[in-house]
Amino acid sequence: MKFATFRMGGRRMTGLVDAEAGKVRPLDMVLGEPVADIVDLIRRYDDLKARLAGIGNEGDAVDLSDVELEAPIPRPARNVMCVGKNYFDHAHEFSRSGFDSSSKDRSDAIPEVPIIFTKVPESVVADGTDIRYPEGISDSIDYEAELAIVIGTGGRGISKDQAYGHVWGYTIINDVTARDIQGRHKQWFLGKSFDTFCPMGPWIVTADELDPASLAVRCWVNDELRQDANTCDLIFDIPTLIETISAGITLQPGDVIATGTPAGVGIGFNPPKYLKRGDRVTIEIEGIGRLANTLR
Amino acid sequence: MKFATFRMGGRRMTGLVDAEAGKVRPLDMVLGEPVADIVDLIRRYDDLKARLAGIGNEGDAVDLSDVELEAPIPRPARNVMCVGKNYFDHAHEFSRSGFDSSSKDRSDAIPEVPIIFTKVPESVVADGTDIRYPEGISDSIDYEAELAIVIGTGGRGISKDQAYGHVWGYTIINDVTARDIQGRHKQWFLGKSFDTFCPMGPWIVTADELDPASLAVRCWVNDELRQDANTCDLIFDIPTLIETISAGITLQPGDVIATGTPAGVGIGFNPPKYLKRGDRVTIEIEGIGRLANTLR
Repeated sequence: MKFATFRMGGRRMTGLVDAEAGKVRPLDMVLGEPVADIVDLIRRYDDLKARLAGIGNEGDAVDLSDVELEAPIPRPARNVMCVGKNYFDHAHEFSRSGFDSSSKDRSDAIPEVPIIFTKVPESVVADGTDIRYPEGISDSIDYEAELAIVIGTGGRGISKDQAYGHVWGYTIINDVTARDIQGRHKQWFLGKSFDTFCPMGPWIVTADELDPASLAVRCWVNDELRQDANTCDLIFDIPTLIETISAGITLQPGDVIATGTPAGVGIGFNPPKYLKRGDRVTIEIEGIGRLANTLR
Repeated sequence: MKFATFRMGGRRMTGLVDAEAGKVRPLDMVLGEPVADIVDLIRRYDDLKARLAGIGNEGDAVDLSDVELEAPIPRPARNVMCVGKNYFDHAHEFSRSGFDSSSKDRSDAIPEVPIIFTKVPESVVADGTDIRYPEGISDSIDYEAELAIVIGTGGRGISKDQAYGHVWGYTIINDVTARDIQGRHKQWFLGKSFDTFCPMGPWIVTADELDPASLAVRCWVNDELRQDANTCDLIFDIPTLIETISAGITLQPGDVIATGTPAGVGIGFNPPKYLKRGDRVTIEIEGIGRLANTLR
């Protein structure tokens, strides 16, 4: 199933999406009881799942074009966790770019363990929302198409073989980055966390509908295909990421973990192809959908 | 004024502290209206300040020894922001230690711009709460005594000369670190964010009571004085930190920014003096108080 957060009549709602039909059904109406948000749905999902699966297509459905989509988790409860350099080709292109403060030279471009950093929750914006050009602060804005995990059941010390049991669903993230700030400040948080730098959406697909180990990931800037890869090429797979992060940190329901971007980002080109005002970044991940945002 | 969060009779409360008298006065009683938490107090402080200043010492006060202190902001709304290598002597000791993934060699030990990383909100614990030894995950646990800023009025693009107007108060943070994880994973988030790795407290002192540019910072492990410095030696002062972070990220009321640790951490010694189970870390910052936590 696909779940979205949207606005209709001034109210924020959570809904069940039929992407093919272009419809969304508000959960409050479908279930006859309030659902506060997607994290509330996640926490109660074991109880609600069977009822949701039995719902037909009649009544209550609204055209997606008549609502305003928000990010599925509009304001995560803590920073979005992100994985750096998690595709071989991207690790090499990033190392060559000169912006990679994490490797001493090109010989250590490929990380030996996952590299984890964060983006502030307030950087999250919806499909269709503009990314703000940080005038006077950075002129090297880049895109990064990424598959993101949404945690269902929390926990610490989750082993690889238990990991998928803690994943509730998947969404798309554009890990927008100010490359000069990322490089100069060594730790990546600052250059990754500018307001609007985390487009997320368009919705979350529940884990039972996807095999995340083999999904096509594509990214266009305007009409030019820049990234074209598959999650089968992740250096550290999803179970490894969950085991690594949860070793010392208790994961929480609704935590978002972006799994890293493949090759083809702006700094992978020579000269770099930074985003300009008016550029539209469209990310498509197989089985999820499309996330598109314009830099203004 | 000093404000604390504490538990009494099973309820979490916010209170006005008289540290010399060892008393705390619940704000609900003092003001005759509910105060949800310290972030609520921060948001309403301009309205409440005069009334709070006029309060005498009679009635309503409870002995601090009769309540259970919590961290002043027990669960920040987003990750705690922290500054790395912000004292010259510490930057050198860290570079020498071999754990500093941010410098390529000793020649660039001193950062040219602030290095910012984060700790998850759930890593925050109170004065007196045990720090959990991460058995089997890391055996190189270290302490870092730090002055922390608490943001009052939020904003983006805050200039240095406006910066102090956005600071509501100051507290103490122990930026506990798993050095092997910090070094191996390149980005510091993971080794800094383990459960219980962010003791904070004992309370927040409002900005009008302190000159943060010159405060003695001391840290003991058991009875041994390890860190003994002054905030006048910060490489990047508080206005610079606020200007840097807020350039692209809108600061929020209740944001916590730890300003970095001086020399004398465990890895500054040869051989390193890592924390062992049972070690008690006590941090004292002039004008604030003492924060003490034991590794178990």
